[in-house]
Amino acid sequence: MSELRQNIVYKEWVIIAKERAKRPHDFIDNSPKLESDKTYDENCPFCPGNEEKFPHIEVDRIEKNSKWILKSVFNKYPALSKDTSFEWFEKDIFRVITGYGIHEVIIESPIHNTTIALMSPKEISSVLLFYKKREREISKNKNIEYVIIFRNHGYKAGASLVHPHSQILALPIIPRDVKQRVEEAFKYYSDHGRCVFCKLIEEEIKNQERIILETDHFVSMVLYAASSPFHSWILPKKHLSRFVDIKDEEIEDLSKHLKNVLLKLYKGLNNPDYNYILRSSPISYGNNKYFHWYITIVPRLTRSAGFELGSGMFINPSIPEEDAKFLREIEV
Amino acid sequence: MSELRQNIVYKEWVIIAKERAKRPHDFIDNSPKLESDKTYDENCPFCPGNEEKFPHIEVDRIEKNSKWILKSVFNKYPALSKDTSFEWFEKDIFRVITGYGIHEVIIESPIHNTTIALMSPKEISSVLLFYKKREREISKNKNIEYVIIFRNHGYKAGASLVHPHSQILALPIIPRDVKQRVEEAFKYYSDHGRCVFCKLIEEEIKNQERIILETDHFVSMVLYAASSPFHSWILPKKHLSRFVDIKDEEIEDLSKHLKNVLLKLYKGLNNPDYNYILRSSPISYGNNKYFHWYITIVPRLTRSAGFELGSGMFINPSIPEEDAKFLREIEV
Repeated sequence: MSELRQNIVYKEWVIIAKERAKRPHDFIDNSPKLESDKTYDENCPFCPGNEEKFPHIEVDRIEKNSKWILKSVFNKYPALSKDTSFEWFEKDIFRVITGYGIHEVIIESPIHNTTIALMSPKEISSVLLFYKKREREISKNKNIEYVIIFRNHGYKAGASLVHPHSQILALPIIPRDVKQRVEEAFKYYSDHGRCVFCKLIEEEIKNQERIILETDHFVSMVLYAASSPFHSWILPKKHLSRFVDIKDEEIEDLSKHLKNVLLKLYKGLNNPDYNYILRSSPISYGNNKYFHWYITIVPRLTRSAGFELGSGMFINPSIPEEDAKFLREIEV
Repeated sequence: MSELRQNIVYKEWVIIAKERAKRPHDFIDNSPKLESDKTYDENCPFCPGNEEKFPHIEVDRIEKNSKWILKSVFNKYPALSKDTSFEWFEKDIFRVITGYGIHEVIIESPIHNTTIALMSPKEISSVLLFYKKREREISKNKNIEYVIIFRNHGYKAGASLVHPHSQILALPIIPRDVKQRVEEAFKYYSDHGRCVFCKLIEEEIKNQERIILETDHFVSMVLYAASSPFHSWILPKKHLSRFVDIKDEEIEDLSKHLKNVLLKLYKGLNNPDYNYILRSSPISYGNNKYFHWYITIVPRLTRSAGFELGSGMFINPSIPEEDAKFLREIEV
């Protein structure tokens, strides 16, 4: 029998389609991959040594032995740009803002064919610290309302390059969906005097059946109302509203945690395409008691169709508890 | 220079990424298609004559010369089903509703390899009248709050069968997104004393640059804040909240209109995958002055990535006015 389960923060219902549910191993991804067996590719715009062939405007870098190990560049085809004024227009019923914003690409390694799941915890720590540094820097801009850090891994996740990279998009507005999540969290706090995410962590750890991994500072779980197979969250156990305020010892734990969760997906589902996104409270909301930052991981194993587009709801053809058990049992 | 444009009803911002925008003809879809050169396929569960091999529970049919020309069957792998009680449970912070609902498949023709764009206006009229009949019937069920009719055309749109069909999903709840659209329309009505969609139609017809087609009773346009290339709406010019209340002469006009818009896409973009969805006011809102029903057409020409999943916003790599001009100029 199918179920409708409600996302605890977003309040949207998800159909867990048990009648048509597949088992976790049915999602092993055998489609062609965006992969390479080369550690260097002469045609890759991000490989060291190709800078003249593929010029980029560099923003920031981390070096080791005078070679870059991490680099941030402006996106060559930016969705938004700082090279425009920030203006808001209304013409009749139409509203438009000039495309003001920041769009950076973070090149996560000089090695062409690695990925977060295969990097060392120390390397991942450097990536996470670099995320933090870039987000802090960008958040100082007074026209920026929201910063989103995300990673597209594989073709179905929207990537077109093998070379490991993430993106940062800084927006002059707070997206409607983001605002609603924060407001729902605020409502829960007003009603119950505590953070809904903290409550979720407590219940999920007590219950255990959707937990993937628990470490000193973080816990990961397949969502009760997962909108697609293996849709998971990694949350800090201690309340914190924004990723940028993370402490160094938490970064260290997170790097191991993130590696393990991604490696479980990599091994268990044959390197599936995925997106991960860091979700923080918007800048102007500051540190607060009601919103709790987290990483959401969305393996791209199903397609959205007319129902999803029309209703905003999702049909998940898998069972979250089975997906979590499957991931828990994969040794890494 | 990119722009952020606001969807007039949903109030979400869309990035029209002019820096990276492609021209309309760049979206001609040369990927492998879910197509067939057979008018009958012995392995198709929907072809006439295959009923014993692929048994379905039939709900309704239209016959001509004692052969079916349109048929509705229960989905074999239903997301929701009437064969369960309607119950709501809360356990701690988790909310769940039993998977009560109705999931029908409408087989739009006995011919295996046709599609709406290639059918005659008379055949399409029959399909639309059948949609209306099924929606009316289903809406009588007191546990049903919202009925959604949609069509998945092609693999990227979520279809797995060539044989032309649509689906009806009837839900025991009003999806959050649907409720918000209706509420935003209500707000506009409260502020301005008129329907926001009627106002949009007036402005777009005056402006002309995003119009695809105008007929006696309907107008179609590429949206000002189209969330993806060629994202379009077909709206009735006369205010009406729900598709089920459409009149016969409007059906006749709509069948020609829908055919023409889909044929323009078919010819202009080489039979692209698409979804269309009929959006009506929820049942319990009845006929009202603020919500206006319409068909939304979403060609599936781009992929969503981490940014879209994380923000709920979309980046459209095309320019709505150019897309509309391209479609207007395709002769059908």
